[in-house]
Amino acid sequence: METYTILRDLAIIFISAKICGLLARKCKAPMVVGEIVAGLIIGPCLLGIVEPSQFISYMSEIGVVLIMFSAGLETNLQELKKSGFIAFLIACVGVFIPLVGGGLLYMAIYGFSEFGSDEFFRAVFTGCIMTATSVGITVEVLKELGYLKSRVGQTILSAAIIDDIIGIIVLTFVLGFKDPNSNTLAILGKVGLFLVLTVILGYVIYRIFKVYDEKHVHTRRIPIIAISLCFIMAYAAEKYFGIADITGAYFAGIILCSVRDADYIDRKVNINGYMFFAPMFFAGIGLKTDFSNIDTSMVIFSVGFVAVALLTKIIGCGAVGKLCKFSWMDSLKIGVGMMTRGEVALIITNKGLDMGIIEPSFSTAVISLIIVSSIVTPVLLKFLFTKDKSAAKPIK
Amino acid sequence: METYTILRDLAIIFISAKICGLLARKCKAPMVVGEIVAGLIIGPCLLGIVEPSQFISYMSEIGVVLIMFSAGLETNLQELKKSGFIAFLIACVGVFIPLVGGGLLYMAIYGFSEFGSDEFFRAVFTGCIMTATSVGITVEVLKELGYLKSRVGQTILSAAIIDDIIGIIVLTFVLGFKDPNSNTLAILGKVGLFLVLTVILGYVIYRIFKVYDEKHVHTRRIPIIAISLCFIMAYAAEKYFGIADITGAYFAGIILCSVRDADYIDRKVNINGYMFFAPMFFAGIGLKTDFSNIDTSMVIFSVGFVAVALLTKIIGCGAVGKLCKFSWMDSLKIGVGMMTRGEVALIITNKGLDMGIIEPSFSTAVISLIIVSSIVTPVLLKFLFTKDKSAAKPIK
Repeated sequence: METYTILRDLAIIFISAKICGLLARKCKAPMVVGEIVAGLIIGPCLLGIVEPSQFISYMSEIGVVLIMFSAGLETNLQELKKSGFIAFLIACVGVFIPLVGGGLLYMAIYGFSEFGSDEFFRAVFTGCIMTATSVGITVEVLKELGYLKSRVGQTILSAAIIDDIIGIIVLTFVLGFKDPNSNTLAILGKVGLFLVLTVILGYVIYRIFKVYDEKHVHTRRIPIIAISLCFIMAYAAEKYFGIADITGAYFAGIILCSVRDADYIDRKVNINGYMFFAPMFFAGIGLKTDFSNIDTSMVIFSVGFVAVALLTKIIGCGAVGKLCKFSWMDSLKIGVGMMTRGEVALIITNKGLDMGIIEPSFSTAVISLIIVSSIVTPVLLKFLFTKDKSAAKPIK
Repeated sequence: METYTILRDLAIIFISAKICGLLARKCKAPMVVGEIVAGLIIGPCLLGIVEPSQFISYMSEIGVVLIMFSAGLETNLQELKKSGFIAFLIACVGVFIPLVGGGLLYMAIYGFSEFGSDEFFRAVFTGCIMTATSVGITVEVLKELGYLKSRVGQTILSAAIIDDIIGIIVLTFVLGFKDPNSNTLAILGKVGLFLVLTVILGYVIYRIFKVYDEKHVHTRRIPIIAISLCFIMAYAAEKYFGIADITGAYFAGIILCSVRDADYIDRKVNINGYMFFAPMFFAGIGLKTDFSNIDTSMVIFSVGFVAVALLTKIIGCGAVGKLCKFSWMDSLKIGVGMMTRGEVALIITNKGLDMGIIEPSFSTAVISLIIVSSIVTPVLLKFLFTKDKSAAKPIK
């Protein structure tokens, strides 16, 4: 690909994402829905004027990493401590119910299978794909509505982060049963080590950065160093600990959320985000979609897959919310906020494809889930938050 | 390459570029020199911790496009009109003298060759590579010093832009003689058409944008639309008219330099530029360098090549500056400012390689020229501007 063709692709993505985003806002839907639809329109699904490319997927990865970093920067640590235990419960149940639901769905369609058989693994793996919430879209919507820093917002955010980690542990177990080479204990140890290191090193980095920041407040180097830290943590999380890069980026944000320039860094990151990288991420989801080779059985499975994946999260997470004394409305918001699936689901699917557990046509169901949840969640969340008169005022 | 490895590369480039940039400033050299050196240090030349990749070259291309767009946005149209004719003269002579100088250098080292022979083409081509000034680095240095909007700054900028176009026309002629398929007249026509279209369409776009901007002043959509316009013009220039993408980006900036939000757009572009893309461009120059397979004859040729390329620009452009009643000091500044070579020289070299006119080892000389000029020009420019007490105050 000639270098200059990327300029054309970027221009088309920026313009279409902006137009569709503004149209979505006119229709009272969140802008990100418009951006995803823009990707569907310009991508192979419809017009085909922009091909998904390695470059676009890199840019969209940077986009979601920056979104999570920004979410971390905007974290209210006091609120997180308060919501931490509840979030942990929500995450656990929010992983368990879809895991079981996905397995049962598979058996309901393809027949019951014995424990330990290949079919049984396929069923469990189907559930596995449903476990990890992709919080990027929810964060963006909560931000747009001004509820990211609310108690519900912080609970969803923490639960989604924890659920990523639990999802990875579950995946590790499942693959561990299937593949004698993968050492479940080692991976569990890695996750533990990552958390411990993040706390210890994170505190050291925070102290050093705080001093440096006070000396060079509001200089260009502050956001550059901050973003570099974010990228390094995102990289290290995935490379050395097998944890999603977005989780690392989020922790980097949390480490810096109490320094004096946290707001300043966040503003700079957001300008880069909204102008360049975030549209690439959202339009990229639409862009990667291709419905060209689909048959009826796949459609039926996909419909079931999407429905079970969405409902199990609402029921599982919502129920725990209600048990933890959230109002019905807030519990529903939590359930809906946890519904989105994204790149982690795709990563798990790829893993399953590589190991021969599932078939390529499976991807259709997963991509459908990502698209439907990406569009339905923002619409529902916006509806719930604006309908709920009792909710606290948005914090913009 | 796994997606997350780009995060590591980005973090290393950002941090090293920033550190070296700050060190360079401590040594009274411009920051861009530090950024280029950072690329040399982390690249295959020295440490080898970052490999040049397609992704990095894309990012650096976006970087130089944004730099040129920003230069266009900061253009003072009145000043440009005043300096236009002089800039044209400087550009013409600044193309002619290096062209002849490069040819003579080749003949001086490899022996005289008859008109029309293969050797003769090689000589002319050597000169051809020397013609196009790469204005990116000079613009950044002038900006850093605060002299971009000065008369000397604007003259250099205009001359460098015009010299790109003349360089392309000369290349077209040279290739036209060599290759019966390339139609010199058609390409000349294309360049003309590009300029005419830019003026006409540019005026229409300017009027529309102006009205839209007044309605939506200081909204996010303004810089997004502006950058998209920049990318589209950069793409169209290279794709349909065979003109460098950076020239298209610069014209896009000029089109928008008089709208109400020009400063606002420029600020947003600059934040993206300095945080993400500009370091990629400057570090990328160092990163792409590899001195591993060099022999003595190549070293001799390279030294001569670099010396002739730098001196012919200083003499050619400086002399015209003096003739046009600039002071000796300002003429020298103009000559030095026109010295840098960059991607256009590489593009022409690649063209020559593809057509079998020159040999692969030639690239060493060209890359040496790019690096030496990229480092020497900023240092000299800063020296000249700070030494010159009579110069107007910098406009920051």
